Formats: sequence, structure tokens, C-alpha cells
Amino acid sequence: MIVSAMSGETNRLLGLAHQISPTPDMREMDSLASTGEQVSAALVAMTIQQMGGKAKSFLGHQIRIHTDDAFTKARILKIEDSKLRGAVQEGNIAVVAGFQGIDPGGNITTLGRGGSDTTAVAIAAAIKADVCEIYTDVDGVYTTDPNICPSARKIERISFEEMLELASLGAKVLQIRSVEVAMKYGVPVHVRSSFTDTTGTMVASEEGLESVVVSGVAYDKGEAKVQLVGMPDRPGIVAKIFGLLAEKNVSVDMIIQSPSRGGGSETDVTFTVAKTDLARVKELIEAAVKELGGGTVEYDPEITKVSIVGLGMRSHAGVAAKTFGILAGEGINIQGISTSEIKISCIIAAKYTELAVRALHTGFGLDKTA
Amino acid sequence: MIVSAMSGETNRLLGLAHQISPTPDMREMDSLASTGEQVSAALVAMTIQQMGGKAKSFLGHQIRIHTDDAFTKARILKIEDSKLRGAVQEGNIAVVAGFQGIDPGGNITTLGRGGSDTTAVAIAAAIKADVCEIYTDVDGVYTTDPNICPSARKIERISFEEMLELASLGAKVLQIRSVEVAMKYGVPVHVRSSFTDTTGTMVASEEGLESVVVSGVAYDKGEAKVQLVGMPDRPGIVAKIFGLLAEKNVSVDMIIQSPSRGGGSETDVTFTVAKTDLARVKELIEAAVKELGGGTVEYDPEITKVSIVGLGMRSHAGVAAKTFGILAGEGINIQGISTSEIKISCIIAAKYTELAVRALHTGFGLDKTA
Repeated sequence: MIVSAMSGETNRLLGLAHQISPTPDMREMDSLASTGEQVSAALVAMTIQQMGGKAKSFLGHQIRIHTDDAFTKARILKIEDSKLRGAVQEGNIAVVAGFQGIDPGGNITTLGRGGSDTTAVAIAAAIKADVCEIYTDVDGVYTTDPNICPSARKIERISFEEMLELASLGAKVLQIRSVEVAMKYGVPVHVRSSFTDTTGTMVASEEGLESVVVSGVAYDKGEAKVQLVGMPDRPGIVAKIFGLLAEKNVSVDMIIQSPSRGGGSETDVTFTVAKTDLARVKELIEAAVKELGGGTVEYDPEITKVSIVGLGMRSHAGVAAKTFGILAGEGINIQGISTSEIKISCIIAAKYTELAVRALHTGFGLDKTA
Repeated sequence: MIVSAMSGETNRLLGLAHQISPTPDMREMDSLASTGEQVSAALVAMTIQQMGGKAKSFLGHQIRIHTDDAFTKARILKIEDSKLRGAVQEGNIAVVAGFQGIDPGGNITTLGRGGSDTTAVAIAAAIKADVCEIYTDVDGVYTTDPNICPSARKIERISFEEMLELASLGAKVLQIRSVEVAMKYGVPVHVRSSFTDTTGTMVASEEGLESVVVSGVAYDKGEAKVQLVGMPDRPGIVAKIFGLLAEKNVSVDMIIQSPSRGGGSETDVTFTVAKTDLARVKELIEAAVKELGGGTVEYDPEITKVSIVGLGMRSHAGVAAKTFGILAGEGINIQGISTSEIKISCIIAAKYTELAVRALHTGFGLDKTA
């Protein structure tokens, strides 16, 4: 059993840190944040014991869950299974603190938001489990967020690839990394409710899946738009800026570079980053822009990325055009576009989020049939 | 720098555990409780960084602070100093989570209430520090608790031996184990206030100390009295009972066995244990008494142990008699007595605590001279 922090606990801990600094040291953040799962693991083990079972809690450094040293978003490198197997052979339920590991220097790392899912899938892979069941507050993966689109349907079975896109596009039901790990090791993941016995959604390989054109609509309010206006258009400038961000482990999502203006001397670059990275990005970018000599920077946190995902896009032309048409039909301006083989994402003003999601859900025939 | 948990945090964590079980598993308790100091260490390191300093937090398993496996009251066996020295040589303030260590199996252990003091002194010994400064909410060690005796005086210098007795008798300013470690390794401990720059109390070897008869009055409301009445008076019965308690790591403080009654067939045994152990003790004792065939058990948590401590007792006769006389003069019944070379302790009804402390403080001439 892999446990995550109690509801609200991770936010409480991050809040403590942000009272001290807007950009707290990431090594310290991880040591701080990992206590949430440590508390849960101990309490769950006690609860099982109190119910008459045998249980033992394990932390990342005890099992050992080895990760790289990218604090706050570390990747699991290797999981030792001997302590877990030993505990289970002694009749225990092993209760593992999710979300955490240790880097080669013995520092505590965490795997990013929802990282307990990744711990669960990685442990399932390490012990060669038949299935990894993820118990959550919803009863499965939906065609879109039922809170803003009442006609959303629960998906019975979805491919790793589609789930990966949905997760990376803002469907919060599973952490992206957990789906990557599941896909890499072929671990079927059953996403289901903590509150009912209903079968949830099985995330598995695409074999035997009917290939629908669009299987879901996702949205993500967690990004902010950064616009560099009037940058000197010299080779290497853009590389320099994104190199800086990469160095500091800031993930950049969509990047749009406009054609040169001013007789080829100036260019505009737009990109999106996680809102939580915005404070750090501002620091970095403003120093960089000054150093590079010119340009102004604008920030817009009031944006949403809406996306449609489906394996069937590979073989069906015109999905992009249809998407843009649906949004235009609602009077929604598209501020940026990015596509992959099985998804199309558009940046829109945050105020249109619900409208866009419902329009795309209906437009691509995902509504519940009564 | 060694840090303890934020005010109220350890109690909050223990409260969570006690919502689950009155006797939670002690291995899980330690994993749970150790998060309090982990949170403090990360936050303090962040704070130093935010103030422009360089800092790095360390947990018990990172430094490595090796302890035995007596969960909730482990003893430090060995501290590795290489990680700490490395961090300091790189210009860091090393911020160490107090109270915690790891046992030979890699399980998290804690050192008991106030254990951060012990971590501090043990690290001071390990790195051969000149002095260990303990910053606390009072400005030093007092002749008794100023909250109940306004004429209490701050002690300038006190010997390890006296401090050890005062700590073990309920003076909460330092954890007993920390004084033992300080005495063993000869680490001078400066107990002082977190809020002012005033010099506090230096705890050091007795060389050069003027030997006063009584240097302090302590009291401890944390114990409960257990009375086994009408036990079969056979050899080995008492050993069996205390063996059982020792096995479960329950510390027994005072033990009083009354002379046989009923023609030598029955005996009464009275002892005290920590109130926090009382639930476990009840379980163990009631099973044992049933098995041993006979006797009833009575519990009284409404007691206090008041004690006087002083190196001078070694050479001054009549201190015990004077103590009993002072208490009798206030109409306070003594329910049990235990003595050592430099202390005398009496069990009395809890309601007389303040009266007894003030009477002894005045009686032995400890009051402030105006």
C-alpha cells in the first residue's frame, strides 16, 4: 500500500515555507514536504494494527527508493525490493510513504505533485505486480471534468498514450510520471474510487482498444503566459533564455516565436510555464533580458490550456480545423496552439475555460447518451 | 544548530496517533513524531538562507545518528561527524533535526521528550565543541519553578550531578539524557533564553563549585502511583512483574514493598510510572496479576513527586529529617520516599504540590534575598 499526504497537508507545509521565502531552497522544500507522507504512512500502519492486522511503514530512504537529485520533481532511478519483500513475507502489509525518495547523496527528494501515484506504479513494476490500483476521490477517468461539464462520461478503458496526454494536459486524476512508468513497464493501472466498490477506469496498452477519434477533453489552469516583446533577433538569444530556465529546472510548456519585425532586427517570443514557477521565472528572465540588451517582458497568469486527446487523430484528418472552428463559433480567441500526434492544445483566456470545454466535449460527440 | 519541533507540534502528532489507538505501535510513533523536527530543520535552513546565510538541514538518518532500537526513548550509540564537518567546511550552518536517530535496522527512533537537548549535547561531544548552548523559553535553571514559587532564584553555575537529579526529578529545563551525555563527555552546557542576551546557567563539572547543602527543589506531576494490594508473597513474584514492565520498556521510578501481612502469605507493592505509560501498564499488570493468582490493583494518577537536590547533602546529616519535618509542619502526608546521595524525593497528593515546593524552598534557605 502506498499512501499520500492527508488532504491539505502538502499545501499547509508549502505555505509554511512560503511564509519564509517566495523561492525557498528546493532541497529544504523536499525535506519539508516529504513529512506529509511520512505522517500518513505511520498513521495508516497504526490503523491497520488497531484493526487487528499486521503492518509496517516504510519511507523512501528505508526501502530505498533511489532518485536523481532534481529536487521537487525528482525521477525514480531504482527501487530496492528486499525490505518490502521481507516485510510482506513476515505477514505485514507494507505501508509505503509515496512521493519521496533519496538522491545519491542521501538527500530527501520528492517526485512532484501527485508523486504518490508514481511511487505506487514504480513499486508495482519493481515487485512485478499484476495491477496497480489507484484509489482516489473520483471513480475513474472521465471524458472531461464533470464539475464543469455535467455530460462527461466515465471511460472504461484507455490507452497509456492517451492517459499520458490527458495527464500532461491537466487531467489531475493521475500524475504524468506515473503513467510514463506504467507504460514503460506495462503495469495496468486501475483508477478507482476510495469511497465505492464500483469498477473504475483501466489504463492499459492499446491492444484491443477501439480507436475513437477523441477520447477526452482536458484543461489546465496551472500555467502562466510569458511574452518577450521586441527581443533583438540574433541567433542564440532564444537558446540562451531557455537554456537558463532549463538549468534552473523550470519546465517550459508551449513556445511560440513570432516572425521577425522591424526589418528583421526584433522578434517576439511567447511561452508558458507553471504558475508556481512564475516568481523564479520573473527573476531569471528580467536579468537575462537586461543582459541581452532590449525587449520588454509581459506576464499573463489569466490563461487556460484546453486540449483534446485521442488515438484516432493519427488516422483522422481535420481534427485541428474542427477544434479551431468550435472555439471560434463560441467567440473564443486562440492565443497559442501546440499539437502532437494524438492531441491538440490551445491557449485561451481563463474566463472562457468552462465554455470551451463544454463546446469541445459536445462538438466531438463525447456527451453522455441519455 | 540543533532544532526541536515547533511549539505544540509534537503534541499535535501524538494526538493524531491517539485518535487511532490508545497504545499505538512505538516504531510507527517514532516515524510520526520525528516529522516535527524535520519540518523545523527545513524551515530554519530556509530562514537562514533568506537572511543571506548558507545553511543545510540534516536528519538523523542523513548525518547518521545511530541509536539503539528502544522506540520513543532510544539512546544514542554513535554519531558520525563527516557529513556535518563537510557541510560546515563548505561554509554552511548545519541545521540538525533534534530528537531523532536511526536504529541498526534503519528504523527511525526518537530520544524521548526534550530529546533535542540530548542530540545537541551528543553532537557537541562528537565534534568536541567548547560549549553547548541550549536556547529555551526560560533564562536559566532556577532553584525551583518560579511559576509556583515567586522567590525562586536563577542558579549561576550548577554541577552535572545536581542538574542530573533536578532533571530526573521533574525540572523540565533539560532532558535527563542530555545531562548524562554532557557529564560523560564533560561538555559544558549553557542554558539560556531564546528571547534575551542575558547569561543563563552554566552546567559544568563540580570543580570550583561552592558546595551548598540544597541547591534546588523540583517536582514532577508526570507520574502515577500503582498499588498491588494482597499479592501472594512468594519469591520471584515481584521480579516477574517488574521484568514484564522492563521488557516492554516501561520505566518504573519509585518502588516500595511493604512487609508481609496475613502470616507472611501476602504483600503489598507500590510503584510509580509515567502517566503516559499508565494505559499500557494497566494492560500488562492486570494480565500478570490474574496469572499470578491473586491481589487487587489500585491506580492513583493524582500524585506529585517533590524533591530536594544538593551536593552538600553528602556531608550534611539531618537533611532527610528536616525535609519530613517541613512537610509535616504543613500537614502534608508522605506516601513514599526515595533517596540518593544528593537528593530526597517524596510522593505526596497532587493538590499539595505548590504548598510543598514553597515550604521546602523557604525551609532550606533558597529564597531570594531582597
